Amino acid sequence: MQFHVDGFYPGDPRFSDPQDRVVPPPIKRPLPEKVDVLIVGCGPAGLNLAAQLTKFAGIQVAIIDQKDDRLLVGQADGIACRTMEMFQAYGFADQIIQEAYQVNEAAFWKPDVDQPGHITRSSKVQDVADDLSEMPHLIINQARVHDMFLDVMRQNPGKVEPHYQRKLLELEVDPDAGDYPVTARIERLVNYSQYSQEIETVKARYVVGCDGARSNVRTAIGKELVGDALNQAWGVMDVLLNTDFPDIRLKSLIHSSHEGNMLIIPREGGYMVRIYIELDKLKAGERVARDQMTPEVLIAAANRILQPYSIDVKEVAWWSVYEIGQRITTAFDDSTDTRAARVFLAGDACHTHSPKAGQGLNTSVMDTWNLGWKLAHVLTGRADESILKTYSDERREYGQALIDFDREFSRMFSAKPRSAENPDGVDPEEFQRYFQLFGEYTAGVSIQYRPSIMVGEGQHQALAKGFTVGKRFHSAPVVRLADAKPVQLGHCHLADGAYRLYAFAGSAEPMSENCGVKALCEFLDRDERSPLRKHTPANAEQDAVIDVRAIFQPHHQTIETGSLHPLLTPEKGKYGLRDHEKVFTVDNRPSSSGGGMNIYEMRGIDREKGCILIVRPDQYVAEVLPLDDYAGVANFFSRVLLDA
Amino acid sequence: MQFHVDGFYPGDPRFSDPQDRVVPPPIKRPLPEKVDVLIVGCGPAGLNLAAQLTKFAGIQVAIIDQKDDRLLVGQADGIACRTMEMFQAYGFADQIIQEAYQVNEAAFWKPDVDQPGHITRSSKVQDVADDLSEMPHLIINQARVHDMFLDVMRQNPGKVEPHYQRKLLELEVDPDAGDYPVTARIERLVNYSQYSQEIETVKARYVVGCDGARSNVRTAIGKELVGDALNQAWGVMDVLLNTDFPDIRLKSLIHSSHEGNMLIIPREGGYMVRIYIELDKLKAGERVARDQMTPEVLIAAANRILQPYSIDVKEVAWWSVYEIGQRITTAFDDSTDTRAARVFLAGDACHTHSPKAGQGLNTSVMDTWNLGWKLAHVLTGRADESILKTYSDERREYGQALIDFDREFSRMFSAKPRSAENPDGVDPEEFQRYFQLFGEYTAGVSIQYRPSIMVGEGQHQALAKGFTVGKRFHSAPVVRLADAKPVQLGHCHLADGAYRLYAFAGSAEPMSENCGVKALCEFLDRDERSPLRKHTPANAEQDAVIDVRAIFQPHHQTIETGSLHPLLTPEKGKYGLRDHEKVFTVDNRPSSSGGGMNIYEMRGIDREKGCILIVRPDQYVAEVLPLDDYAGVANFFSRVLLDA
Ligand SMILES: Cc1cc2nc3c(=O)[nH]c(=O)nc-3n(C[C@H](O)[C@H](O)[C@H](O)COP(=O)(O)OP(=O)(O)OC[C@H]3O[C@@H](n4cnc5c(N)ncnc54)[C@H](O)[C@@H]3O)c2cc1C
Ligand SMILES: Cc1cc2nc3c(=O)[nH]c(=O)nc-3n(C[C@H](O)[C@H](O)[C@H](O)COP(=O)(O)OP(=O)(O)OC[C@H]3O[C@@H](n4cnc5c(N)ncnc54)[C@H](O)[C@@H]3O)c2cc1C
Repeated sequence: MQFHVDGFYPGDPRFSDPQDRVVPPPIKRPLPEKVDVLIVGCGPAGLNLAAQLTKFAGIQVAIIDQKDDRLLVGQADGIACRTMEMFQAYGFADQIIQEAYQVNEAAFWKPDVDQPGHITRSSKVQDVADDLSEMPHLIINQARVHDMFLDVMRQNPGKVEPHYQRKLLELEVDPDAGDYPVTARIERLVNYSQYSQEIETVKARYVVGCDGARSNVRTAIGKELVGDALNQAWGVMDVLLNTDFPDIRLKSLIHSSHEGNMLIIPREGGYMVRIYIELDKLKAGERVARDQMTPEVLIAAANRILQPYSIDVKEVAWWSVYEIGQRITTAFDDSTDTRAARVFLAGDACHTHSPKAGQGLNTSVMDTWNLGWKLAHVLTGRADESILKTYSDERREYGQALIDFDREFSRMFSAKPRSAENPDGVDPEEFQRYFQLFGEYTAGVSIQYRPSIMVGEGQHQALAKGFTVGKRFHSAPVVRLADAKPVQLGHCHLADGAYRLYAFAGSAEPMSENCGVKALCEFLDRDERSPLRKHTPANAEQDAVIDVRAIFQPHHQTIETGSLHPLLTPEKGKYGLRDHEKVFTVDNRPSSSGGGMNIYEMRGIDREKGCILIVRPDQYVAEVLPLDDYAGVANFFSRVLLDA
Repeated sequence: MQFHVDGFYPGDPRFSDPQDRVVPPPIKRPLPEKVDVLIVGCGPAGLNLAAQLTKFAGIQVAIIDQKDDRLLVGQADGIACRTMEMFQAYGFADQIIQEAYQVNEAAFWKPDVDQPGHITRSSKVQDVADDLSEMPHLIINQARVHDMFLDVMRQNPGKVEPHYQRKLLELEVDPDAGDYPVTARIERLVNYSQYSQEIETVKARYVVGCDGARSNVRTAIGKELVGDALNQAWGVMDVLLNTDFPDIRLKSLIHSSHEGNMLIIPREGGYMVRIYIELDKLKAGERVARDQMTPEVLIAAANRILQPYSIDVKEVAWWSVYEIGQRITTAFDDSTDTRAARVFLAGDACHTHSPKAGQGLNTSVMDTWNLGWKLAHVLTGRADESILKTYSDERREYGQALIDFDREFSRMFSAKPRSAENPDGVDPEEFQRYFQLFGEYTAGVSIQYRPSIMVGEGQHQALAKGFTVGKRFHSAPVVRLADAKPVQLGHCHLADGAYRLYAFAGSAEPMSENCGVKALCEFLDRDERSPLRKHTPANAEQDAVIDVRAIFQPHHQTIETGSLHPLLTPEKGKYGLRDHEKVFTVDNRPSSSGGGMNIYEMRGIDREKGCILIVRPDQYVAEVLPLDDYAGVANFFSRVLLDA
């Protein structure tokens, strides 16, 4: 898709008239007096949480923001592969793919040895390694991601629209105040004549502060961002330009010898480009005070760095000086040794990063992706509130690791390139190796949560070497049996709050009586220890809490659906219609990156024995178990789910 | 995507609340007095035409329908690969892919020799041959296709909403009446108090009758459907059901020995199924008069045919007796030897088919896909009205060929299976071979338009054997040079009314001075015979009328964009921004169906000499020429375009 050629306009680019692109803000209405969850902040963290919670019709959610309307332009733009996997679970990955710029290669530029005032390309490298994820690495205006979440919130059973122009002032937590222990005081920023007062009070079971780096929620629960005192300042601008720089449509990391460093990120629509300039690395005489910064200063700096090339900027769609330290709070909630959390922090409210590795938005949405289903499980009575503790444990550790990575990455990025006069500088080749090595990190797929009540120790990891316990479920191709459709197995894992139990069959024929999958289904269907029977409410679908899926090794045409266990075609909905999408077989075709698409080979699954894989609602592998370890299955679920 | 589990509801399935799924009908407004094009009928033919014409801001379009609102359920559901290629050009193929059922395999069932009262599977076959199209064969409610066209109409510069509840009564064509020779009398079917009269009159330059099999427009211009007197009657129903029939999620063609034939088409959402039952093939005692037909009768017939299996229908979402003959009009317009056409017919208004091969919707949209850009070229002054003649010539021949095919296909489908008592019946294996052989036909990719002013003779076909002159441009994978993105070359061909000129480079290096593409660009850019210079209006973009694209053979990382001819990065929009998406290189990766993805190999392009490929705005290959045949290029365009 090409757009923004006549200037940048926010909203859905499918509309050729810019006036039609933006949905009007929702009608103003009073806040509810009581809610299950009050979300403060309509950034990516808050919207993702609202999108997840509105999947549950029974949960009362309100989301507020002090802004006049939703975001239209600016802020982050990098969408990591892992984030795309989550978007897939919400159903809008395809639309983002259609609209966004796709990062396929990165170009590295360094000072020209012969002409140190000029830059020269050192190399081009593939950006995302083969089979790192089935999803691409994309670049798109953060505002469009917000739009997608807002659509999901509208489409979901919970049907929530944000309340804009509402500023959270204070929170009060009274653990003895019964079901709604948190009281929030919220100011209306504009005086509407139809209301009689300026301050509204909302009582909530839980409050989640997704209110950014200057979080009031954080202050209210007495937490602080700690870390680097020294802020890094970056000039950032989204521009429409012409240039003779040859890699203008590639992500380009540019080190000049004396003029500082810059980063070019091509943007959606084919014409716009984001340029980052590290202000601290400009020469002393070129630096200007922050309040004197203008886009013209940034453009002049870019032109010095890019010599012998230059840019001719036609429009600055957005620009900012983005000044940020690498900081994190000591905990992501207000829990104490004696009481569970009532208030949580997520996103920039509890950690901040430099923009280089593009982790701000991606980490923020992953915070609430971790928290959302846990809150939903507690609020719907599926799980005890003790599971909420894992949120802060899991995300804080990852937040810290990311900051360490970010610091190292920033150091490498900001260092002068090595040269005769600069023997301690960074070798461009070393930087590039580092960049590739840490592809998993920046793609967001390296996270490995530690063992806990909801992450196993990985004793049986050998049964499925490629599905690391604690890491995200790494999707692979399969063929859906009922309609012979080649699909990604991971794409059946929607944002619906259910655990997945994948039964990978061993070598016994699927239709034979000694097939381990059949025996497992029999246990799950009939045994009184069956977690399906124990944890699924009587009025819920069979797959609402634990969604069982099976994968077989023979060619799909050799398996008769009728011979499989009926648990694998569960009855759904008011008519009890059979669901035919639970069973898969391997895809034996070659893949475009070479090698095959057989999931057993790609993920190191034991072909002889098969295995059980339990995956959490947020798509992290919780446990690998032998196909006949029924006690193991029952134990796992009794730790994380209550009896229905 | 799974939906319709609690019953069928029309509209966008992303909304969990069925009440939110359907957009309200547009506000009623008076018809304009004068329009460039009046389209009668909001079926697929009419909506596609409106979608195409609204791409042009200057063309005044009105589209009317006698219905109260848009279609919500029923009618056709098969979307051929070729139709998907066109949807891609409009930008909504991805959304259809996400929602629709994808036909991957077809199952054939025949009478069991041992138990003739029972059916048994004879085979499963792949539905769409490898590399028949980059697009899948899909099944979705025709109403959803209408929704997509309506979205495009809203998003396009022309911004048109249909006028519903307007019935065309009569047309009058007065060739001497100046610019608006056609007068349409239109009745408002509901009496709105704010209007003072019941009949509106619209004057139009052109009228297109997309008003279905009982077309008033056809009558008004004195044409008739001629062909088979004998109508075939099919019972058709969209149902939610449970069954023990094992192939319920595969397209299944079922021949029973004595109970007749049926066709099962799985539908979008994972639960719904369409069932066709050929009523004439029911035994005499089972046949009922048409007006006594009920879904219960159809269900009972299905249960007899399916023995030993049965269906348990929970909801009938839609049903109909679809009775239709194979008929066609003698011409698709009102032109005479002495005057060009003012009124056109398209879709069911000029040809009807049996539903088995699923060609009604697909042929109808292809009619207006052929007509739309031609009308737009004439109305915008790009082309002389003589090009309009090709519409009837091209589409009528195809319509006739399709009817012949349909008749043969129907005969095979309806014949009794061969058996001892039925030696003249059709051999199931023969039927299956026929089905596979005619995959190209049913996919809509077999159409080959005859040589004309806009289709060459194919003298130089040997330069690109896989791009048959007169057939649709058969897309293949390439890598876009500027951003190293693997794309389908055909997907740059949007529904924008422009010709494409693809320059496939020969073996000379793209950056060398004797590269044929460079020389061609120089001709196109500077020579006074250049069709780009002759036919592009001064105020239009360089690629608005003829969009030049180049494809090179070396690996994309070895080509420097800066060394290519500037014509390949044309200036666009109000800022004159360079367009970086015109140049491609081969994709050398393996493909999942085996073999490679190199477009030169896949499409038999001469690697040594390269070639020029001219593709019409409707994606049909107009001509293959040697890379240095500048006169050939100039001649072609001077036949189809006026000087600007
Ligand atoms: C100006 C700016 C530029 C940025 N540029 C980049 C960049 O170039 N690259 C990059 O990777 N990242 C960038 N980021 C960071 C990235 O946008 C954030 O990491 C990401 O948005 C964090 O998401 P979040 O939901 O945690 O918080 P935010 O997106 O910050 O959302 C917080 C929301 O809470 C609202 N809010 C705050 N306080 C209150 C209150 N008391 N009451 C009600 N509402 C409140 C705010 O209005 C805001 O909408 C930028 C951020 C900003 C603000
Ligand atoms: C009831 C029915 C069932 C069908 N079932 C199948 C099927 O099972 N399988 C299959 O492949 N195909 C089926 N078809 C055929 C398929 O839907 C058509 O081939 C396809 O819709 C043709 O598209 P069209 O745009 O040419 O005409 P249509 O879709 O018929 O659209 C014509 C439109 O013109 C309007 N119109 C007619 N006269 C006037 C007038 N005087 N003034 C204003 N408006 C007018 C009509 O209201 C209608 O909306 C069915 C069609 C019908 C009507």
